[in-house]
Order: sequence, then C-alpha cells, then structure tokens
Amino acid sequence: MPIRNGAEYIQSLRNRGLKVYLFGKLVEEPVDHPMIRPSINAVAETYDIANEEPEIASVQSSLSGIRVNRFLHIAESASDLVNQNRMQRKLGQLTGTCFQRCVGMDALNSLYSTTFEIDAKYNTIYNKRLIQFIKQMQEENLVIGGAMTDVKGDRSLSPSQQEDPDMFVRVTKRDEKGVYIVGAKAHQTGCINSHWIIVMPTIRLRPEDKDYAIVGAVPANARGITYIYGRQSCDTRSMEGGDLDAGNAKFSGQEAMIIFDNVFIPNELIFMQGEVEFASMLIERFTCYHRRSYVCKTGLGDVLIGAAAAIADYNGIANASHIKDKLVEMTHLNETIFAAGIASSYQSHKTASGNYQNDDMLSNVCKHNVTRFPYEISRIAQDIAGGLMVTMPSEKDFRSPEIGPLLEKYLKGRKGVSTENRVRILRLIENMTLGRNAVGYLSEYMQGAGSPQAQRIQIA
Amino acid sequence: MPIRNGAEYIQSLRNRGLKVYLFGKLVEEPVDHPMIRPSINAVAETYDIANEEPEIASVQSSLSGIRVNRFLHIAESASDLVNQNRMQRKLGQLTGTCFQRCVGMDALNSLYSTTFEIDAKYNTIYNKRLIQFIKQMQEENLVIGGAMTDVKGDRSLSPSQQEDPDMFVRVTKRDEKGVYIVGAKAHQTGCINSHWIIVMPTIRLRPEDKDYAIVGAVPANARGITYIYGRQSCDTRSMEGGDLDAGNAKFSGQEAMIIFDNVFIPNELIFMQGEVEFASMLIERFTCYHRRSYVCKTGLGDVLIGAAAAIADYNGIANASHIKDKLVEMTHLNETIFAAGIASSYQSHKTASGNYQNDDMLSNVCKHNVTRFPYEISRIAQDIAGGLMVTMPSEKDFRSPEIGPLLEKYLKGRKGVSTENRVRILRLIENMTLGRNAVGYLSEYMQGAGSPQAQRIQIA
Amino acid sequence: MPIRNGAEYIQSLRNRGLKVYLFGKLVEEPVDHPMIRPSINAVAETYDIANEEPEIASVQSSLSGIRVNRFLHIAESASDLVNQNRMQRKLGQLTGTCFQRCVGMDALNSLYSTTFEIDAKYNTIYNKRLIQFIKQMQEENLVIGGAMTDVKGDRSLSPSQQEDPDMFVRVTKRDEKGVYIVGAKAHQTGCINSHWIIVMPTIRLRPEDKDYAIVGAVPANARGITYIYGRQSCDTRSMEGGDLDAGNAKFSGQEAMIIFDNVFIPNELIFMQGEVEFASMLIERFTCYHRRSYVCKTGLGDVLIGAAAAIADYNGIANASHIKDKLVEMTHLNETIFAAGIASSYQSHKTASGNYQNDDMLSNVCKHNVTRFPYEISRIAQDIAGGLMVTMPSEKDFRSPEIGPLLEKYLKGRKGVSTENRVRILRLIENMTLGRNAVGYLSEYMQGAGSPQAQRIQIA
Amino acid sequence: MPIRNGAEYIQSLRNRGLKVYLFGKLVEEPVDHPMIRPSINAVAETYDIANEEPEIASVQSSLSGIRVNRFLHIAESASDLVNQNRMQRKLGQLTGTCFQRCVGMDALNSLYSTTFEIDAKYNTIYNKRLIQFIKQMQEENLVIGGAMTDVKGDRSLSPSQQEDPDMFVRVTKRDEKGVYIVGAKAHQTGCINSHWIIVMPTIRLRPEDKDYAIVGAVPANARGITYIYGRQSCDTRSMEGGDLDAGNAKFSGQEAMIIFDNVFIPNELIFMQGEVEFASMLIERFTCYHRRSYVCKTGLGDVLIGAAAAIADYNGIANASHIKDKLVEMTHLNETIFAAGIASSYQSHKTASGNYQNDDMLSNVCKHNVTRFPYEISRIAQDIAGGLMVTMPSEKDFRSPEIGPLLEKYLKGRKGVSTENRVRILRLIENMTLGRNAVGYLSEYMQGAGSPQAQRIQIA
Repeated sequence: MPIRNGAEYIQSLRNRGLKVYLFGKLVEEPVDHPMIRPSINAVAETYDIANEEPEIASVQSSLSGIRVNRFLHIAESASDLVNQNRMQRKLGQLTGTCFQRCVGMDALNSLYSTTFEIDAKYNTIYNKRLIQFIKQMQEENLVIGGAMTDVKGDRSLSPSQQEDPDMFVRVTKRDEKGVYIVGAKAHQTGCINSHWIIVMPTIRLRPEDKDYAIVGAVPANARGITYIYGRQSCDTRSMEGGDLDAGNAKFSGQEAMIIFDNVFIPNELIFMQGEVEFASMLIERFTCYHRRSYVCKTGLGDVLIGAAAAIADYNGIANASHIKDKLVEMTHLNETIFAAGIASSYQSHKTASGNYQNDDMLSNVCKHNVTRFPYEISRIAQDIAGGLMVTMPSEKDFRSPEIGPLLEKYLKGRKGVSTENRVRILRLIENMTLGRNAVGYLSEYMQGAGSPQAQRIQIA
Repeated sequence: MPIRNGAEYIQSLRNRGLKVYLFGKLVEEPVDHPMIRPSINAVAETYDIANEEPEIASVQSSLSGIRVNRFLHIAESASDLVNQNRMQRKLGQLTGTCFQRCVGMDALNSLYSTTFEIDAKYNTIYNKRLIQFIKQMQEENLVIGGAMTDVKGDRSLSPSQQEDPDMFVRVTKRDEKGVYIVGAKAHQTGCINSHWIIVMPTIRLRPEDKDYAIVGAVPANARGITYIYGRQSCDTRSMEGGDLDAGNAKFSGQEAMIIFDNVFIPNELIFMQGEVEFASMLIERFTCYHRRSYVCKTGLGDVLIGAAAAIADYNGIANASHIKDKLVEMTHLNETIFAAGIASSYQSHKTASGNYQNDDMLSNVCKHNVTRFPYEISRIAQDIAGGLMVTMPSEKDFRSPEIGPLLEKYLKGRKGVSTENRVRILRLIENMTLGRNAVGYLSEYMQGAGSPQAQRIQIA
Repeated sequence: MPIRNGAEYIQSLRNRGLKVYLFGKLVEEPVDHPMIRPSINAVAETYDIANEEPEIASVQSSLSGIRVNRFLHIAESASDLVNQNRMQRKLGQLTGTCFQRCVGMDALNSLYSTTFEIDAKYNTIYNKRLIQFIKQMQEENLVIGGAMTDVKGDRSLSPSQQEDPDMFVRVTKRDEKGVYIVGAKAHQTGCINSHWIIVMPTIRLRPEDKDYAIVGAVPANARGITYIYGRQSCDTRSMEGGDLDAGNAKFSGQEAMIIFDNVFIPNELIFMQGEVEFASMLIERFTCYHRRSYVCKTGLGDVLIGAAAAIADYNGIANASHIKDKLVEMTHLNETIFAAGIASSYQSHKTASGNYQNDDMLSNVCKHNVTRFPYEISRIAQDIAGGLMVTMPSEKDFRSPEIGPLLEKYLKGRKGVSTENRVRILRLIENMTLGRNAVGYLSEYMQGAGSPQAQRIQIA
Repeated sequence: MPIRNGAEYIQSLRNRGLKVYLFGKLVEEPVDHPMIRPSINAVAETYDIANEEPEIASVQSSLSGIRVNRFLHIAESASDLVNQNRMQRKLGQLTGTCFQRCVGMDALNSLYSTTFEIDAKYNTIYNKRLIQFIKQMQEENLVIGGAMTDVKGDRSLSPSQQEDPDMFVRVTKRDEKGVYIVGAKAHQTGCINSHWIIVMPTIRLRPEDKDYAIVGAVPANARGITYIYGRQSCDTRSMEGGDLDAGNAKFSGQEAMIIFDNVFIPNELIFMQGEVEFASMLIERFTCYHRRSYVCKTGLGDVLIGAAAAIADYNGIANASHIKDKLVEMTHLNETIFAAGIASSYQSHKTASGNYQNDDMLSNVCKHNVTRFPYEISRIAQDIAGGLMVTMPSEKDFRSPEIGPLLEKYLKGRKGVSTENRVRILRLIENMTLGRNAVGYLSEYMQGAGSPQAQRIQIA
C-alpha cells in the first residue's frame, strides 16, 4: 500500500535501524531527534501537497498506469517539466527551505534516457530494470535520494589516479548476484529521510576508471551504510526548546555524508556498470534538470520578500519610497531566476527514450543567477530588517518573568503589532539569511548541481 | 594606575556586579561566561596592540600630557584620524571581529567639538567637564561605550509624541546633584565590556523634546542599569567545548540592550542638558567619524580573503585562473572601502574647538560601500569555499573514535594538508559569512552608524 | 497584390509624397536618402525572412484565411507569441539594429482584445472595424506603425490640464464622416517606413480627457502629417561614402517626430473614441506585449558577443582565460534577458476576445533587465575591443595613397588577419555601443515601452 | 618668454608645419580646423586655470626656482600629488572632456625617479639631462605629450620576435650626435596639441629587445613625424556649424596615431638607451601615477550628474523620489572613484630621487573603478534623460523657419524652461554618454593607462 500523506511518510521512517551519527554519537531514532525532525517535516510536505494540489503535484504515469507523486514521475511532455517548476516554487513557499526530493526526481529522469542509450549501444537491459524499479517506487510512493557528489580528494587527479582509491565510490568486489561498493558521498541532501538511495558517478570518466562507472539503487538502511550528519548554522537552536529563535521551527533542510563500506547492490538494481563513456551523459542530463530545479528557491524568495514587507510594516515604514523600491528590486531578481528556470522547462525536447529533457543553456543561466541574486535579495532583506535582527535577546529572555516585560515594553514597533510577531519575523529573516535555512537559500544553493564555474563552462 | 595590557583589562572587568541577562538568567560573572568571553578577548587586543605597535595605537595627548591609547585620544591632526584607520584595519586583521572600542573614541571626539560650540552659545562649561572626564579615562586607560541608538517605538513619531514616553532615553527627575534617566538603548556594541557608558541622543530633537536632550557619563555598573545580551548566529557553539566549530573560537563581537531604570548622572558628568538644537550637530559629527571607522571591516576582509586563498590552496586549485580572478575581485572591493575611509580621514579639517573632523561626503561613501561590498566579498568566499563549509560534521564527529578516522580519510584535500586544517579554514569562512562574526561583518555592519538610506540622505 | 519581398517593399515606399524634414530641409525621396535608407533596409528584412524562414515568420491567419507575415498576425495561441520572440531574435541577429515592425504587431494585438471589451460594454463595433482593417493589411502585406508616445509637456499635469491643449494628440473637430486630430507623437519608431499609422493614447485618461481618448488608423502620407527626422549618434557617417566607418552600413533604426495638423480619420478606421476608461487597458496590454518584444535585443547581443569574440581572435588573445570569462558573462546576461521574454510568451493566457496575452510580471522583468544588461554587455565588449575602437583613423585615411599603406603596416593584428577586417569589426562594436545602433541597443532600449521606473511600478 | 595664458598657448601652436592627416588629407593649420579646435581649447584651459586658481594649478619648483604650471612640476611632497588630483577634477568640471596634459606630467615624474636609479646603477647622466629639459619646459611653459603605447602587432610576441620589427618603436641608427627611431605610437592623447613628445617603451623588455629600450624627447614638429587623426563618435558634428548638436561645442579630447620615420633624437635629449631592465620600472611608475590621474573623470562625472539633475528639473520631475535616489547613486559612485584616487596620492612615499610616488594598490583600485562606474553613471544619466536625447531633430530643424516653431511648441518641458535649454542639456548628456566625449569618459577611459585586466594583475 502506498504512503498516502505526510503523516504516513513520517511513520514509514521509523525503526529502520539507520546508522546516523550526530555530534559524535549514534542517533537512536532520527525521526524523534529535534535537530533532524524539521528536515523530515519538509519532506512530508511533498506528500501533502499531492493531495492538496493534485493538478501540479501528482500526475498519471504511463509506466505504472496510476496517478503518482510528481517527484516519482518520468516527464512525458514539456508541460510535465513546467509543472515540476510550479510544484517546486509552491513547496518553497510552503516550507521556506529545501524539501529534498528533487535530486531523486532529476536522477530518475536523467537515468531513464541515459540507460536507454546505453542499452541501444551495448544491448544491455538497464532501462528495463530501471522501469521496474520506478514502478515499484511509484506504487509504494517512496522517497529516493540521489547520491552523486564524491568526496574527490585531490581535485587535480582522476578517480583512478588518487593516492587513496576510495576518494570516489567504486566497485571493489563482484559476484554473480551483484557488486559491492566502497567510498563516500558528501553533502547528500535528504539522504536520511529517503527510503532508497541511487548511487551515481559525479565526474566524467576515462577507460581506466571502469570500477567507478557504477549506478545502482540501495535501500537507505542497507548494511554497510553510515551517515554523518552535517552541521548547519544555528542548528542547535532546534534543541533549545521554544519555537521563536529557530526562526523556522517546523522546517529545515538536511545534508549528510554517506559512507559505503562494502555495500551490496544486486544485479537487478544496477543501472550502469563499466560503461565509462556514459558517465558524462548522465551527469550532463542530471545537472541540466537539476540546475533548473533551483526554481524552488524563488519560493523561498517569496517568503523572504513577504517577511521583509511585513517587518517594514511592523516598523511603520511600509510606505517609504525606498522601502517600496527595495521590495520591487527583490521581486525583480526573484522573478528573473524563475523566468530562466521555467523557460528552460518550456523549451524541452523529447529524448530518444521518449521522456523530455529541458533546455541546457537556460538551465545553466537559471542556476547561475541563483548563485548571485539570492545573496542580493538577502542583503536587501537585512537592510530592511534593521539591526535588531542580529542583536535581539533570546526567546528565554522574552519568556523570563523578570525581563520579559521590559523587552515587551521596549521592543514594541508601531501600534497594533505585538512584539512577539515582530520578533518572529526578524528571526525568520535571520533564519533565511544567516541561520539554518541560509544554508539552503544561499550557500548550498551556490554549490548545488555544480559550482558557479561549472555553469560558466557549460554556458561557454 | 592605568590598565597596562589585555590581561589587566580582563582582570579589571571582574567583580563589578553587572546585571547581565542571557537566556533568561542573570550571568554570574560575564568574564567567565564562554559565550561572552570571546568578545572580551577582542577588546583586550586593543590594549595589547598599544604595546606592540605604539606608533599607530598610542599617542601623546596634549590634554593629559601623557602617551595614551589612541581609542582615548582627541584627534589633534588629520594624521591622528588616518592613524585611527590604520589601527582599525590592523585590529580587524588580528581579531576577525568587532573590537568594540571605536564608538567610545568617536563619541569623545564628536562631543569634544560639540560641547565647545554649546558652551560658546550658552556660556556653559560642558567642554571643561568633558576634558576632565577624558583626562581621567586616559590616566586609567579605560574602555568607554557610547550609548546612542534608542529603541524608537513608532518610527513615524518624535520622542515626545510616542505613546510611551520612554521609547527614547530621557530625564525624568532632576535635583541639585544631577539628573535621573529612564529608557533603553538597543544593540549596544561592547557595553558589557566597557567601564563607562556615555549616553547620547540618537535623533534630531525639537524644542518639545527637551527632556530627551541629555548627554552624560555613567559607570557601566551604575545602579539601575540592566543588560540583556543579544543573540548572534551560532552563538552557542562557544558553549559546546572544542575550538573548531566556533570558527573563530577566541574572538567575537558583542551587542546588548541596556535598560536604564532611573539611573543617576551627577552634574559634573553631564555634557548636554536641554540644548535640543545641538543634538543633530552631535549626531552628524559622530556618524561622520563613525562611518569612516568602518574601515575596520577591511581588516576582516583581509582575513576572509586570506581564508579563501588558503582553502583554494588546500583544495588544490590555487592556480585556477577563475580562483585568482575571484581573489582579485575580493581585494579590489576591500581596498575600495579602505580608500574612501582613509581619504575621508586625510581630508580632515580643524573644528572651532581645535580637534579634527574628517570629510563627511567620503565618510558616507565609505560606509555606503560597506553596506554592499562585504556581502559580495562573502559571496565570493563561499563560492571558493565550496559546499563542504555548510555540510561538514561537527567537531565531536571528528574527535569520535568510531567515525573520526572515516572523516579523516574521506575529507582529505590535496597531499600535505591535514583534514583538520581544511576544516578549520572552512569553519572560519562560515563564521565570517554565516556565523557569529557575520553579524559584525555583514548585518550589523549594514546598520551600524545609521542605515544605508541614512547615508544616501547624507550623500544627497 | 501583396508585397512579396523586401525589394517590393522598398519599391512600395517610393513616390508617396511624405513631408519629411531632415537637417531643416524637406527630403525629396526618403528611400534614396543615404541617412534614411539603412532604416528601410532593416524593415525590408522582415519581408525576406518570411520567405526564408516561413515557419517562424509567417503564419496562417484565421481572420483572412491566408498565410500572413507574423508581424500582421493576431496571436491565436501561446506558441504564436513564442514564435514572435524567435523571429525577433533572429531579425536582431540579421540586422544588428531595430527592424521597427514590432510596435505595429503589438498595437494590433492589444487593440484586438481591448476593442472587444469596449464593444461588450458599449455595444460599439470597434472590433469588427479593426478586423476589417487587419484583413486588408494582411492581404496587402503592409507595414503598420503604432503612434503612442505624446510629447507630454509638463509631466505633472494631465492632458486636459496642460497650458497648451495640444501636448497630447486630441480630437479637435468631428463631422459625420470622421474626426480631425491635432498634436504630436515623439520618437516614433519606423514611422516614415510605414504604410499606415495607428494613433493611440499614451496615458491613463480621466473623464475630462475625453477628446484625448482616440484610436484610429491613417495612411502614413495622410494630409496634415509632418515628419521630423531624429538625429542619432554618428548618423552622418552614412553620408560620407564608403562602408567602413558607419560600422553597420546596411542597417539602422529610425525614430522621428510626427506632427498632426488636423489629420482626418474616417469613422470606419476609428477604434476608440471617448471611452476614456479603456485607455489604460489598451496601454497595459500594449506594454505587456511590447516589453517582451525587447527580446529582439538579444539578437543584437548575439551580434555584439560574436564581434567581441572575433576581435579577441584578431588580436591574438582568444584563449586568454579572462577573455573567455568575459564572453561567458556577456552570454549569460544576454540569455537571462531572453529567458524572461520567452517565459512571458509561454505563460500566455487567452483573452475574452480569443487572442493570447503574455504574462505581465515576466514581461516587465524582461524589459527591466533590458535597461541594465545591454549596458554591461557593451561595457565588456568595449573592454575586449581595446582603445583602437575609438582612436582609429577614418576610412578615407585607410584608402589614402599616402598614409593608407602606413596604417596597413602599423594596424595589423595577428598573422592571417587583414587590417581591414580588424577595423571592420571594431567599427561594428563602436556602432553598437556608441554609434548609430547604440541608440537602439542601449538608449532607446532603456526608454522604449515605458521608462525603467514604469516597469518597477508594474512589478510592484 | 613663457606662455602666459590659453590664448598665447593657442597662438604658439600656429605655423609649426605639423604633418597631420584627417579624412585622408593633410590638414593645413590644425588650430583652425573645426574638428580639431575643441581639443586645443581644452588644453588652453590648463593655462588659464593656473592664473585663476594658482594655489592648486601652479607651484614653486625647486628645480627652476620659479612658480610653474603644476603639469610641469616634479612632485616634492604628497601634497603635490593630492593637488594634482584637485586640479584634475576641477579641469574635468570646467571642460567636460580630456584636457590632455596629464600624460606629460606623469611621464616627467616617473622618468625623474627612474633616470635617477639608472644613473645610480650605470653611472649615466640621464637624470641631469632630464632636469635640464624640465627646466627649459618650465621656463617656456610648454605642453609635453608622452608617447608610450606602441601598435604591438601580435600581442603574444615580444618586440624583437615580431615579424615586422617596427611594431614597437626602436632605434634603427646611431651616430655620435644621437639616435634615429622608427615605429608608431597608437591613440596618443593630445599629441598634436603638444610642443614636445617624450617617447617611452610600453612593455617589459628583455635583453634581446635592447634597441627598443629608448626614451627621449623630440619637438612635436620634428622631421619624420606624421600624425593621423583618430575618429570619435559624432566628431563631424563640430563641422556642421551651430553649437547645439555637438553637445559640448567648445571642448573635446584628442587621440591620434604618431608615425616615426627615422626621427632624430640628440644625445642630450636621450633619457634611457638600452637599459632594458628599467623599462618595467618606468612603466610601473608611470601607470601608478596615471591610473590615479583618472580622478579627472570625477570632474566629468560632476558635469554629468549636474546635467541629469537639470534635465529632471526641466522635465518637471526633480522631486520624484526615484530621481533623487538615482542622483545619489551617481554621486556615490563618482565619489568612490575620487576617494581611491586621492587616497592613493595622500599615501605617497619619497623615492630615492627625492620626488614622490603615490600608492600603487589604491591607484589600481581607482582606475579599476573607472572601468566600471562611469558606465553605470552614464546608464543612469540616460535613464533620467529619457528617449528624447536620442530622437531629437537636428539644430538645423530647430532653426528652420518652417518647422522650428513646431518643435518649439511641441518640445517644451515644464513652464519657465526654454525648449533650447532643454535640448542643450540633452545634447550634453548625449555628448558624454554616446558622443564625442563618451570616448574620453567611457571607452578610452576603460583602456587608458592599461586595460582592466592589467589593473587586476597589478592588484593581485
């Protein structure tokens, strides 16, 4: 029976025996950890939206013949890709953070067309296996993480040239049932919140890198996998109790490191093995999808613009012409990002496999603007927010019987606005520009789907 | 006997009985609080530098006739102001944060010339009193905080029009010995680390605002003062133990709220009382000094540029032409800020009182660039740093016997660079662009000495 | 019989008896004037492209039932608008200048839906008349100019408040056959190269502005019309002989002033008369189409990027990493403009009248980027071009027997590149960034379809 | 007897028999050529200002013991360099163009210290000769042009590697009285308006480039020199009669090519010959001075900002908040340039020879901002100016009896402003952003004293 909503999804993550380290200790049940939980809540929204806005977040799949969550759908038209963007922006607005499910969606779609072309050349059956896998995912409505970015070691050396051969994930052993892999994937978005992980190469490969040309699916709790949780700015505020200082107490992103210690992949879940020349096709198609998936950040931009407008109002300066001008500038930049993303989706073409691939140039343009404009949007938001955002006392001070009333008195804005609401909005802006979700809105954003320089190379 | 060095300064702060709240609780001894201490260390550097680089950080004062710390000096030439900038940049390089002593320096200098002009008009003796006070400060080598920014309430109303008359600090009682003040000052830099606080108005005043036209000095531990500590991004990392995750474990800035509950100022420490038309002169001169004092941030810029160059080297890409180009761009922006600040100091003129005032236009230009370029410098630093900066595990994971070795193996950069050093530099960049010192480098920076719009008005 | 190609179009412009002033004198035959001719050549391309690339530049019209030039087509789908953009970019590439026919296309489309809504409210027959007019234009394949921008006088006053009532075009007389109009339209793109002119209001009107609410069509050579030709940077180079110094000798834009001295419009060519409240609908729909029509400038951007790449090659520095990086930046900016324009077209919706209207927000975003990025693209092009672009001697010097050989010797670039080719490319870059076509690429660009501030208001 | 003012200077240029080509023909008397004369007028201002503002534009020289024009002065203090900047900005304000005399000033100063160091190493007497030459120039008050930029040929090859050895100026013959040089210097600012030309190498030299290591002075009308005048945007407007369309009818810059055909330099005017390793010292010191001399452009910026404010007023929108904001932005950018230039001068140090050299880093920062901000200032000026700037009819139309009155009527702005004044300001903005002086304000600006990339290398 498929997972039907966010609550069931959260339930499905329990008792999986994942080996997750955080602050040097094994986490007993990630679902219940206050620092991890907000990232799970964000993924849960991807389930609920499919019920609430089925026209953009769910779709009839010709593979399984059923209506599926769009994150598990193979794009059958340019419209499907445009609707991905709409769904992404909407979820960005709803969560104000990274909802972690795009990587899997983009991985499935790029693998779909790539396996088709490998099969055409080598007479393999990867595409058939993949379809089988996708149908299963659709029927159970599961979350798939895509594990691409290797730790890389010395960046001037290829995988097989590294002093330590494990700097890129590789096959170390083979038997008739499958292969065993070793290595590590860094900054894996939402991996702990996934049911399955698809392992993929991260770099153009050469003939001597054959063992590194491996694509396959493993359950997130496969034997041999260790997760180490990544720190985020202000992450421990989620553990302080209260809901003010976190800024966005309910939602956050998640990045962790995955270490594979001889993890087994059975043959039927292997989608590439040794076809080194197809690594770059897979990566290019994946990044082409994914750089446009960053349209999600315009949803975060909407939240930040709204928060900036709200604090200007609370401060009593909503009508100042320079404030209005700054809000226009934020909107202009945010929509410029959106335009390139959605234009890339509209300009999609059909691949040999029959699914749709978006426009490469515009996808890179979208992502390259994402490495610039959110920083400027954040700068303007901080300008409007004013200094209090970074000098306010803690929630505990506001709740204190001795000084709480003093803060209440002295931090009031214009008449009719509660001090708490003012603080709440300021903490939200802090969260998105300096705090936990700044990681997703700015920094990770900058690097996700390849560095700014990678986009420039692609544009060239 | 004067305080002779940083260690003696730290000692001088003990046992003062300050009423400081943090996380809703009274702090027993701020000097020993792990979250507060780094800010005290930063001020301590202003003492040590006067010993190590006496030519820029100390100076012969004609007032007291002795060699004094430059932070306590009344500028007797344009050179004195230029040397302030040199000292500020140097301290920025040494601490990577806000060393908190500029507000006092700029307050003394602007008060010096303003009191002289009040006296000339009203036959008062404020300037004489001030000189007396300054001499005492110089002889004891104390830290002075300048308390200017009121909490302001509804910004569209003047002090006397506010529903609650305490939204700006005001005199509520007078007797033959002095006055009593009530109100609150927000985001007060380094106030808890100061020995004395000078209270000043923050806004142009009108005749009906007479009670708000008060300038005077009070000891930081005067009866009736309550401090509430401001939160900063990632502030609690200082309380986790270890020295890696804080990014800059030794130094930080400090902003707190000061609440005055009928605090007494004796007559001999009052430097303005009721001369409402001089409030704007004082504020303009103070901001003119202070907007150029932001040259300190070019010292922080130097640290960040150095860190970016280091991580590029550790990643093995120091020679990539796009990396070199980005480092040039960071430097260019940083020096553009510096140029305007120091040009403003060079173009100083003598005031009626005999001290020197820097150029107003160039001071505003300096500060206005400070509200833009550090954000761009930070963006580039994050670009160079790569995603690991915001997805790395905690120090506790690195120290863990189970997974520490795995991290050591998988997070290695180029040969010859220890994983720990790589982590250390990344945490420093995080600290300055998202973490604790981003508050001082970016956000507070943006608002300090008046908002960006305030500078535009001044430029116009 | 319709005009079938560019040559026939040029022929059709002869002997029309237009009253055109240039340098204070009546022009005998504009078609043969060397300063005017390049602008006619540019329009001629809009005819030839319909033959050469019929799939984007011609289309089956349901109105007339025949295949028509896309510039005369009423958009029947979002695809139609997307194809407008493709045609615009292509023509920008082919001519490197403004081909002047978009205003008419956008005017027809905005009038189409607006007249439909006027009719619905007032039971008028404007839409029917307009359809009749469009069919005639399609059958004869004519060029339509749209005359919108009034001279405006004092911009703080409405039309009927102006001291001189003629500051906006207005009806001064009516009889049973039609109306007579008086006034002037400034900077009218391609008006002298048009067969028909559609007059429209330029500003939101109030009830007292009834006489200004007039829309109608007049032949370009109607009695009472005077044209005064606008100067452009370097315009007289077209009159010097030679083809080098003009930079783009074949093509240019055209802007002129039109003065209406009691020009008659017969009833059957009146499409609005007195319905003041519909002026703003017409303007908003027109600007919504037109701000996205600026996608044409990405075609000019393509030319400029190509020219910059060529001169870098001629100078022997094509492989310098900073050159490659600058070309990427130019491309990135150019495609960012394109993305917003084409996304706006893709996101079109059907109006009540049945034709399609593009997305307003993204259209404004497109145009707003057009007021910024071409300046930056030009700056980079000049950076790559080097100083010779603005210090080169004239073509006559290159052709001089005395000094021509000296220039040939001393202005050689890398081996294998002729000096003349080098000069030619430099003059093209000058043409587009400082010279005749900079008017269209930068300055007019900036203001066309409303000022930057107008877009900001719309974005807000 | 020295030249005492601008009028005498202009007189001094007559009858020199210069061989100047323009439009393929020898110019009879450059002084009387309408296209050349405005550039002469600009230089004449450098004489008049020395009379009108002697405190900044003239100075007591210790070399000759007399008060000399500052353009001929060897800097004896940091103040001297600061005053150069003040004079440059003032002259920029007065002329709105390039006044052409800075290259000579910067060449003399850099040669002064470099010859001193050559002499110290090789026991030569270049410095003594140079002092002799400078004294003569000071006594006669002459204009010196500095000829540095060679035509360069293939930029990937050194002087001696070029296929044609004349791509860099070189010594072809020597006798006991002196040397003969051959080659060409491109884009030579004000050369035709100079009395003397100092020839210098333009590139770091290697031992095999010995013949290219030549520095010497020649009279501008030396036998063997040919000048070919460079075209500028809209240059021929100066030849149309009238004074409106030129935008700045009185003043312009000048760039020409100089060809040396065996020009003789006598021994006593040779200041370097064969000391290849000193070429880079000379160039670095020259560019260090010269990149800061671009402060002149802030004077042009002042003119442009003033013009933008005037046209906003004429259009009746001076009080619109977005206009005020744009003027502030222009000012901010302009002063940012100024700050770096003057800071560089203030931070000068004494060289071994005793004269003063400004700060290298800040000089490069100044010039690098000059390659960016004037473009943005121009963009904003065009935004404020509106479309009329590039679509206005010619002066002849305004003067025409038939259409002049129509233009007078229809191009009126707000009450109280004459149409002619409105046109005049618009033509001035066109002149500075697209026309003749855009060459100096933007394009030449960009490249002068080395390309943007050259500054980045120096900053690195």
